[in-house]
Amino acid sequence: MLAEVEKVLDVFKQQDINRVYFVACGGSSSLMYTSKYVLDRESKTIDSDLYSSNEFVHRNPQKLDEKSLVILCSHFGKTPETVEAARFAREKGALTVSLTFDAESPLAEVSEHIIVYKEGKETSYVDEAPAIMLELVFGLLLVKEGNKKFTDVVSSFENLRSILESEKVNYQEKAKGFAERYKDAKIIYTMGSGANYGVAYWFAICILMEMQWIHSHAIHAGEYFHGPFEILDKDVPIIQLVGLDETRPLEERSLEFSKRYGDNVIVLDAKQFDLTQIPDGVKGYIAPLVLQSVLRMYADELAEARNHPLSTRRYMWKVPY
Amino acid sequence: MLAEVEKVLDVFKQQDINRVYFVACGGSSSLMYTSKYVLDRESKTIDSDLYSSNEFVHRNPQKLDEKSLVILCSHFGKTPETVEAARFAREKGALTVSLTFDAESPLAEVSEHIIVYKEGKETSYVDEAPAIMLELVFGLLLVKEGNKKFTDVVSSFENLRSILESEKVNYQEKAKGFAERYKDAKIIYTMGSGANYGVAYWFAICILMEMQWIHSHAIHAGEYFHGPFEILDKDVPIIQLVGLDETRPLEERSLEFSKRYGDNVIVLDAKQFDLTQIPDGVKGYIAPLVLQSVLRMYADELAEARNHPLSTRRYMWKVPY
Repeated sequence: MLAEVEKVLDVFKQQDINRVYFVACGGSSSLMYTSKYVLDRESKTIDSDLYSSNEFVHRNPQKLDEKSLVILCSHFGKTPETVEAARFAREKGALTVSLTFDAESPLAEVSEHIIVYKEGKETSYVDEAPAIMLELVFGLLLVKEGNKKFTDVVSSFENLRSILESEKVNYQEKAKGFAERYKDAKIIYTMGSGANYGVAYWFAICILMEMQWIHSHAIHAGEYFHGPFEILDKDVPIIQLVGLDETRPLEERSLEFSKRYGDNVIVLDAKQFDLTQIPDGVKGYIAPLVLQSVLRMYADELAEARNHPLSTRRYMWKVPY
Repeated sequence: MLAEVEKVLDVFKQQDINRVYFVACGGSSSLMYTSKYVLDRESKTIDSDLYSSNEFVHRNPQKLDEKSLVILCSHFGKTPETVEAARFAREKGALTVSLTFDAESPLAEVSEHIIVYKEGKETSYVDEAPAIMLELVFGLLLVKEGNKKFTDVVSSFENLRSILESEKVNYQEKAKGFAERYKDAKIIYTMGSGANYGVAYWFAICILMEMQWIHSHAIHAGEYFHGPFEILDKDVPIIQLVGLDETRPLEERSLEFSKRYGDNVIVLDAKQFDLTQIPDGVKGYIAPLVLQSVLRMYADELAEARNHPLSTRRYMWKVPY
């Protein structure tokens, strides 16, 4: 585990924290949905909210104060809204902890505490951003409420790299098949709930809309039956995530319905993954990370089949906005 | 104001309430986004969360207890997930207040307190569901924190019917023009932030997806620049809501960008409404109700132009789910 994470957990011990705000944009924000789910499920004393950075600043929550912990994230640390959110939160006296890949970035500059995460097969998964997000919330739960799951979460990450690599091998052919079948799709929906909703959101807005210019929408598996499901026909493609958290019944229900009336349902079920090395008590919280890793391969294959590299942009970083 | 609302506000006085859960599905849930925005903006002591009913039950938040107020809503009072959520919340000792159109419904049956709302031009807007949602949160803020905006909110509703009717007249031609131009559209996005996001969500999932079988997605105006905006081209239709709340700059920014690169941006700007009868301090909270009322006319015209009545369903209430 990174020294910066241990340092921040020590800071948690010394400070009175009754609220966490998860603040970021796009893909960085999508990492935080599982953390919010964890606090809702596990915490007796800590409230939490999750906001896109600019919404957070303009909404200006009354309860943001010196007892608030604000966790922010930006890969390059240059997202202006997130940098402003960190500055704004410190001005309110809140404790700011920012995750970034760049220790020299503006976000690192304005944040009270920074955690520089790592990436890539060479590093232990313990030091990747999605892992650190969970280390922070379970670490907070440990120091504030004596929640013992922290150890299981960290040990899970130590085994996760090999799990991710073997599941990628298991799903390689499925990913190629998905890409071939949907390379001309005009719209692809994603669906999930609970701990997995953030992964569905990430694939919809970052991969499909941003990187592939394919229309999308991350439908909540429970909301599906109160409007969105009327769009379903034989043709509409839906990627259904099925996780291992307590909301799994919602995802099983939407899957069952979509399969009954649709012919283009792509299923990623965490029950198919070999998670024997992950303690049962935290499987539901770890499953989204495996789902995301496998989905990333689906994204790579889709980009390849469409001859539309994931790096292609028409506006982002290219025009003023 | 309905006697049931006054009765519930008396109950608020007598009970210790430190948290509100807004729990409903689909359109009923969309009403609650503004209420959550109000509590975030105005409350010093009360936390809040908003969940789709089934997510709420399975997520099973640790902090749901006898100090929690759970506000639920279902028009016919028959939504099984919401009925179950009310039962579940009472079992946890929470105070349950349910809005419904049917006093004899299962939801009314299982809820500790019910408020039977009214609808239609004959009734005062004060007694409609969107108004009651705000009466409850501002009433809570009044009795718990002495927030004085409650009076302004209630007086606003007394004037609102005439405002809604005159704005509908003002927008009649625009609504017809929208319907003619987009009757063959395969996808229409909606966009908003802050107090208005729920209205964007409602139009996307209830009107477009459910009632018109048109692909859609309510894009958050701040998140737009972190993925979704890459989908924008000259052709893609986007309905941009621009409200009067503190997040208006987010909506102005997304509007400016969409207009720069798109030729199909439909704008509904609350600044164009005559809200002189609404006190400035609450204009931002009332604007979504006017936006929704005008948008409802856009829905009617779209259904007419497409010869696809808003009542048409293929699954809802017709097949098991």
